[in-house]
Amino acid sequence: MIEVAVMGYGTVGAGVAEVIRMNADAIARRVGDRLHVKYILDLRDFPGDPNEGLITHDFNDILQDPDVSIVVETMGGLKAAYNFTKEALLAGKNVCTSNKELVAEYGVELRTLADQNNVNYLFEASCGGGIPIIRVLNSSLTAEEIEEVTGILNGTTNYILTSMAEEGKDFDTALKEAQANGFAELHPEADVEGWDACRKIAILSSLAYGRHISYRQIETEGITDVDAVDIAYARAINTRIKLIATSRREEGGIWASVAPMMIGKENPLTAVDGVMNAVMVKGNAVGTTMYYGSGAGSLPTASAVVGDVIDAAKHLHVSIKSDYSAEELTLMPVGDVARSFFVRFKGLASDARKLFGEISDLTKLEGHDGEIGFLTEVMPEKDFKAKAASSDQVIKWFRRGKKEEK
Amino acid sequence: MIEVAVMGYGTVGAGVAEVIRMNADAIARRVGDRLHVKYILDLRDFPGDPNEGLITHDFNDILQDPDVSIVVETMGGLKAAYNFTKEALLAGKNVCTSNKELVAEYGVELRTLADQNNVNYLFEASCGGGIPIIRVLNSSLTAEEIEEVTGILNGTTNYILTSMAEEGKDFDTALKEAQANGFAELHPEADVEGWDACRKIAILSSLAYGRHISYRQIETEGITDVDAVDIAYARAINTRIKLIATSRREEGGIWASVAPMMIGKENPLTAVDGVMNAVMVKGNAVGTTMYYGSGAGSLPTASAVVGDVIDAAKHLHVSIKSDYSAEELTLMPVGDVARSFFVRFKGLASDARKLFGEISDLTKLEGHDGEIGFLTEVMPEKDFKAKAASSDQVIKWFRRGKKEEK
Repeated sequence: MIEVAVMGYGTVGAGVAEVIRMNADAIARRVGDRLHVKYILDLRDFPGDPNEGLITHDFNDILQDPDVSIVVETMGGLKAAYNFTKEALLAGKNVCTSNKELVAEYGVELRTLADQNNVNYLFEASCGGGIPIIRVLNSSLTAEEIEEVTGILNGTTNYILTSMAEEGKDFDTALKEAQANGFAELHPEADVEGWDACRKIAILSSLAYGRHISYRQIETEGITDVDAVDIAYARAINTRIKLIATSRREEGGIWASVAPMMIGKENPLTAVDGVMNAVMVKGNAVGTTMYYGSGAGSLPTASAVVGDVIDAAKHLHVSIKSDYSAEELTLMPVGDVARSFFVRFKGLASDARKLFGEISDLTKLEGHDGEIGFLTEVMPEKDFKAKAASSDQVIKWFRRGKKEEK
Repeated sequence: MIEVAVMGYGTVGAGVAEVIRMNADAIARRVGDRLHVKYILDLRDFPGDPNEGLITHDFNDILQDPDVSIVVETMGGLKAAYNFTKEALLAGKNVCTSNKELVAEYGVELRTLADQNNVNYLFEASCGGGIPIIRVLNSSLTAEEIEEVTGILNGTTNYILTSMAEEGKDFDTALKEAQANGFAELHPEADVEGWDACRKIAILSSLAYGRHISYRQIETEGITDVDAVDIAYARAINTRIKLIATSRREEGGIWASVAPMMIGKENPLTAVDGVMNAVMVKGNAVGTTMYYGSGAGSLPTASAVVGDVIDAAKHLHVSIKSDYSAEELTLMPVGDVARSFFVRFKGLASDARKLFGEISDLTKLEGHDGEIGFLTEVMPEKDFKAKAASSDQVIKWFRRGKKEEK
């Protein structure tokens, strides 16, 4: 019997207890032993809950019980989660987490600590919910030099953008509806401002390129300024607006960004709708691969946590090696990245050409007289921004994925 | 230095040597040691080839060299590949293969032999080329009861069906063009008759459900009978015809099949075109996940082989555990599976209703007077076939994925 403690009995923590219960036999076959949840740490009581008897309010119950070899951290937040994780690792317990904030902020330190104590700090569930993207990067695409990681990594914003695109809603209406349906939180800033996606792409990029990347370096823009007119333009030029978290290795270095972008049929992420997530990984040998699944939700995320618990159970006192340096990588400025831009412009196409040179996909929307939309040629972002800033005719703009890309 | 021998210097074998060369530094970082190709076994000579000096015609050079700890088998075929693999494992060498025929036929025996000799027999490249689907099933979705595995697992047939759908070609023309472009072999039977996809779904299903499934049990139908009229009907009812390899756990047991099917937008495989492959895996906790990438080609397939070589190099004398029983699983007959069928029918809708009951998506194609196409209600395949066989008005039919499926 392998004893597990779950810290945080919210959506994911409850899912972890449930997956361990419902798939107990399959899990036992794979581990070669049975998993058993001995404690659930939460500040609240859960009268009437089937796991009521396992609830403790005292972390020391877990820390001081030598039977507990694996601790699940599904508390979220930084301070308490950090302290408990650190103490658990120091006590020789494996920790499996879904907490992307903690992994993005203290992952390097906690992994080093785990290594030093011959245990594991595993975080498959921190990115992409049930999509096994961490293990793909750590254990599968090991023969590759990774050239790009691009994903739709936040279910809330993808749900909002999908309902704006499919039902013509504006942002506020779509957000309210997402909140009513449980797909957005009451305080949705971390999602709609792109902070959640930013932490996830920082984690994935660190693994992909083998060096620590701080999320603070990543230029991040959310979807709060996307309006129904933008969505209509996107449709008119055969694209969709998606919140794209991306990083890429180029000649000048590695860059990363989170921003709403217009992407077209050439990109397999375009068809990813609703709360689904997907990650595209490009390697220099394998080419383009893509991984798709539920990016959130109780059972999908719990499935990823329990996958880590199983891995930890098979390696109770062996640190699983992965290629990851604590040395921080300095990103190349996004301003140096060349691409095409979609521009909403007040004026004539001839004015736009004077400012930007060649333009394409020239579009006029009904009911928006005096305004045009178009794509620029590929140019470095800082050059584009300088041109855009020099004119009061530019209403707003979006990044467009390179059109030639497959 | 870890010494590697490559058996078979064809498309994939040459790719393996190339990936080990071009990504040497990244690989060394991940393994903690450098990989070095010491021998390449092939019957041919390769005058002028950069690896000419490594060529040997004698398997004993590899077998008797104690320095060689990992053998790559990219020979294909059964007899020699089987003998060499067996001898290598018995000699305590790890074997990594792309040979799905061998894995489907002798995988159980060879894995057992590897276990007994504390080495590994790894076969990531046998299914889905560069898509890391084997490791996803073995190491990632371990918290799941897998309910379904469905894939587009053969690039040649997907290329042919895509060019039939997009350019209105008939099968023979599309096949000849695929041969001219190097996407189909001169003797294309293994691909177009579905045998290749059959072996792959047998391997994937064995891993997914944890019991050996013989490919001989799997009802397999290729694409040679698909014609341009079928493709036109598929488009008319908003579907595509794809060669679908699938297995599913139902109340009555597990069944598997390979057949051209009509699938619609509700299925993420519908958008997988050309030589790309994709596998959809459904678990009882995670829901639907999908994995997409190049299903064939020198470097993508080699990337998967070298990923295995790296795993073997990290576990030189440790057998990597996976959940897999040698005990053969008896499949449930496909005749018991209930679904909807698309029927091409000579006669009136009223005749069709008399035979099949409710029908939907009734379609008449221009230039095909006297013929209709429609979908039946969901019914067990054996019932459908009995009805179809009782009438000389049924021209042909296809399986339709359950329409309600997401």
